[in-house]
Amino acid sequence: MPRFALKIEYQGTPFYGWQRQKTLPSVQQAIEDALLKIDPTNKGIAAAGRTDAGVHATGQVAHCDLARHWDSFRLAEALNYHLKPNPIAIVNAAPVADNFHARFWALERRYMYRLISRRAPLTFEAGRIWRVPHLLSRDAMQEGANYLLGKHDFTTFRSTLCQAPSPVRTLDELTVEEIPLADGTEFRFHVRARAFLHNQVRSFVGTLERVGGGSWAPIDVKTALETRRRDVCGPVAPSQGLYLREVCYETDPFAGHTAGESNEGTP
Amino acid sequence: MPRFALKIEYQGTPFYGWQRQKTLPSVQQAIEDALLKIDPTNKGIAAAGRTDAGVHATGQVAHCDLARHWDSFRLAEALNYHLKPNPIAIVNAAPVADNFHARFWALERRYMYRLISRRAPLTFEAGRIWRVPHLLSRDAMQEGANYLLGKHDFTTFRSTLCQAPSPVRTLDELTVEEIPLADGTEFRFHVRARAFLHNQVRSFVGTLERVGGGSWAPIDVKTALETRRRDVCGPVAPSQGLYLREVCYETDPFAGHTAGESNEGTP
Repeated sequence: MPRFALKIEYQGTPFYGWQRQKTLPSVQQAIEDALLKIDPTNKGIAAAGRTDAGVHATGQVAHCDLARHWDSFRLAEALNYHLKPNPIAIVNAAPVADNFHARFWALERRYMYRLISRRAPLTFEAGRIWRVPHLLSRDAMQEGANYLLGKHDFTTFRSTLCQAPSPVRTLDELTVEEIPLADGTEFRFHVRARAFLHNQVRSFVGTLERVGGGSWAPIDVKTALETRRRDVCGPVAPSQGLYLREVCYETDPFAGHTAGESNEGTP
Repeated sequence: MPRFALKIEYQGTPFYGWQRQKTLPSVQQAIEDALLKIDPTNKGIAAAGRTDAGVHATGQVAHCDLARHWDSFRLAEALNYHLKPNPIAIVNAAPVADNFHARFWALERRYMYRLISRRAPLTFEAGRIWRVPHLLSRDAMQEGANYLLGKHDFTTFRSTLCQAPSPVRTLDELTVEEIPLADGTEFRFHVRARAFLHNQVRSFVGTLERVGGGSWAPIDVKTALETRRRDVCGPVAPSQGLYLREVCYETDPFAGHTAGESNEGTP
């Protein structure tokens, strides 16, 4: 059976996360329902990152096996047709090796967290960014973030529900970008690692927001990390600001498959 | 009675335009309802631009008279409280001269139109941008746009319902910006004039999209303009891509009134 990788974008708001649930709507189920429409014996899909309820993605990657070969362009178009009106889009599709695995082959995951400092309520970005009404210092947040880089026991920054056998991870990037807006300031946290613990990014951001607002000193992040106790973590930032942006593999499965272009010549 | 200018942001999707209607929801009515909550004898509000159904604003300006003086910060906060859960926010407020008029004193209006070329359906931006599935040439659109600059009879580009006595307007800017995205390309049309005719910006964009897609040549825009007949205009672009961004006055009524800062000292 030919195996395909899919690059998936979704707004997490109406879903109880990526993972299939018995009765609640999930992104996985919406996509598997669409797959069944075009491939009635389909066995389902496996994703690189099982995002939580309300978390968004612009570059989730998943793989599935299909009963027959498909032109990548037509596959994406057919799935998008059946995904309507869900806020989920297949932005790319590509045939991959029979043993490709979206989760186990992933070498790096890239997340972005969006935080906005502004007094007025949100009009356009409600549900897609975390708003706080007070001013924040980017420099202080970046100084605190720098203590988290590298290989550490991240017990402080993982959910008590996290099922990973080890709390040790290597954080490759945590950059705080500041974007001045007509009304307020947006901060984007760019985070990269091979793998993350449950709630790790949101625990980072919730803690760094305390630093940005001045109630924590940057050095307090180092102390919290070294304490290795969940109860010294700052508040967990809300899911609505988090985006799974990219999943990296040794070879990009979508290389040469420009979104919107057929691999069977001019459509 | 002290007069105040308000800078207003709104997502136009749920409203039948700015202007108060007998039975349908409007932005004006939502704000006037909020004003009545804080000032029970309030006589209402006048805006610089009466945006159509579905059109958004990030910098609409309106004025109103209040029974007593208000701290600008508290006024914005109070109105925002009563505006919930509408996607409308007062992003700034400032006391102005008794004869200030948001509409008649305006020297320039600035609009932006957002158009995206991408195959996949929209997930995050549905209702806030016009999507076309085909490729577009920015250079061709800009070349066509340049024929529209300056003082012209814009009969071709105004709605047959337009009530302005004269179809002559002076277009000061029509710049097409290209923004490459992970999936697709966004085009932003930046448009400036002292005043616009009804549907003028959307008629421009609908016509220029034809140029960008190749079914019109850039020079055809000049011919259409000079023909001065509504029926030679391209299709009117949908309202969901249009934003009233800024209204300019001889003196900025909000100068010195930073959003989120009190004019009565530390809040």
